[in-house]
Amino acid sequence: MSQPLILLMRSISDDYLASLKGIAANYRIITVEEATSVNLDDVEIIVSWRDDLGNKILDSPTSRLKWLQVYSAGVDDLPLAKLKEKNILLSNASGVHSIPISETVIGMLLSHYRGLRSAINNQAQQRWNNRITTTELNGQSMLIVGTGAIGRQLGKVATILGVKVYGINRSGYPLNDFDATYPQSEINHVLPEMDIVVNILPLTPDTYHFYDANRFKHMKDGAVFINVGRGPSVDTEALINACHSGTIGFAGIDVFEDEPLAEDHPLWQMENVLITPHISGKTTEYNRRFFAILSDNLQEYLKTGRLLRNQVKFDQGY
Amino acid sequence: MSQPLILLMRSISDDYLASLKGIAANYRIITVEEATSVNLDDVEIIVSWRDDLGNKILDSPTSRLKWLQVYSAGVDDLPLAKLKEKNILLSNASGVHSIPISETVIGMLLSHYRGLRSAINNQAQQRWNNRITTTELNGQSMLIVGTGAIGRQLGKVATILGVKVYGINRSGYPLNDFDATYPQSEINHVLPEMDIVVNILPLTPDTYHFYDANRFKHMKDGAVFINVGRGPSVDTEALINACHSGTIGFAGIDVFEDEPLAEDHPLWQMENVLITPHISGKTTEYNRRFFAILSDNLQEYLKTGRLLRNQVKFDQGY
Repeated sequence: MSQPLILLMRSISDDYLASLKGIAANYRIITVEEATSVNLDDVEIIVSWRDDLGNKILDSPTSRLKWLQVYSAGVDDLPLAKLKEKNILLSNASGVHSIPISETVIGMLLSHYRGLRSAINNQAQQRWNNRITTTELNGQSMLIVGTGAIGRQLGKVATILGVKVYGINRSGYPLNDFDATYPQSEINHVLPEMDIVVNILPLTPDTYHFYDANRFKHMKDGAVFINVGRGPSVDTEALINACHSGTIGFAGIDVFEDEPLAEDHPLWQMENVLITPHISGKTTEYNRRFFAILSDNLQEYLKTGRLLRNQVKFDQGY
Repeated sequence: MSQPLILLMRSISDDYLASLKGIAANYRIITVEEATSVNLDDVEIIVSWRDDLGNKILDSPTSRLKWLQVYSAGVDDLPLAKLKEKNILLSNASGVHSIPISETVIGMLLSHYRGLRSAINNQAQQRWNNRITTTELNGQSMLIVGTGAIGRQLGKVATILGVKVYGINRSGYPLNDFDATYPQSEINHVLPEMDIVVNILPLTPDTYHFYDANRFKHMKDGAVFINVGRGPSVDTEALINACHSGTIGFAGIDVFEDEPLAEDHPLWQMENVLITPHISGKTTEYNRRFFAILSDNLQEYLKTGRLLRNQVKFDQGY
């Protein structure tokens, strides 16, 4: 039997490559470019995913593929049915985003409550205006819609900041640092009490346009809405209307139905909207955290054939 | 002997006035306008401070003044020597600022590390730029210079955000949530290790131009410097030079040697400087917190002649 392969579908730094080689001494580690000159059936582990090459491996009846580790937290773009049928271990990068995204959400909120966004805009005009309205994040109520790794980290930080933290998850299972949690089906009953609503839902058929005109109508007047989940979870027209009418007092939006946001999109100029260009999870620390997951899993896999962290359950889809 | 007076040098809401009247039934509570029609010698308690009227009372040899409660945390603008000589109890509003100022500091830091300041400036130009460098507050080391109520609240929040928190206070006394504390005399030994330096020092003769060219020279290259203390603690020219040279990578400055900052001041246009117009402590929650202090102190004063909270020690100046 020929030497088993680890196929890296994304290039990595020499340091990380050396580290992987140290862990998996019996494997040959190859890049996408090198994949043309090997027998793809020898690929036992794939890191990151590309449809063309990945499906080619997955579709071969003689493939030795056993494990796919992806860079993203969401796995909605993968051929889940096929992976499940072939009994491939699947692991994601859940947890890598929890620190940068929770920091971005807190930063967006403080930029609003503490007048920093106004100050930054005034600075561009060299204008000293200390009549900016400044209130506090402390004492606000926050609904975190989606209580995965990101939501839980956000809940922990928000609690210390004096925020009353509530969560929405599928079944309403309870969590530390949350004053209460509710099932998704009850969200409209909870929304009227919430000063802040943070969307961190993954995109599934259930969550497409989850935030539509009707949903926004249930929000407290002047509520703060943050979207660091997925763009298509929000009906953009409904969002614009809610910001115009004042149902939403302030919106911090990182993800959009169409990206990049068109240069003449009405959202850009809305005074109560903060736009960030899909960077809430972007961080110089990404690779370090991802390789910690990969490295843990690789060591466990070589020892026991199982994974230590972040294994995706096919029936849940995450 | 005529009825003793409580002189309010700042107008307050009817609710708070009613509450004070309830506590101090034997006193007459007057405003600055009413002060013209009373014998100022009867003023026993002053709330807030105005130089003209205040000094008139303080300079009268027959004054009954016993206690001055001010709205600010800093007391550097008051006639401290005279107050001390006359044995006047002095209390400040320390603690009222700890939540808004610590929130502002965290907001300034996240606006920098998470790319929000760049995003806000890009939004004004309707520009989608996701190549903004975004790193994290998590993992940074932070030196909090001045570990009073604000510094301790900041330390608590920063710790949860994964920051390594260090403190400077007079003697280096230890504190919860701080990895280590050092006396003021050792600051230059600690500065080279710090990613972030937050100034919260009160203004005293010792702290005038505490941050001068020499001090900035001890900072780590590219350090982040936040000033939410007092403007004159910083030599503005030295700050500008340090921001130009890159010794300071990012500065968040709320207080200045001359306020308002002149329209043509060079700080406005510096790309690595965030200017806020002395609003870091400004909050809609101010009066509520201030009256909690005033109310506690008034009750204690009427019972024992002493204060319960926030008494200023004249030899320390805070």
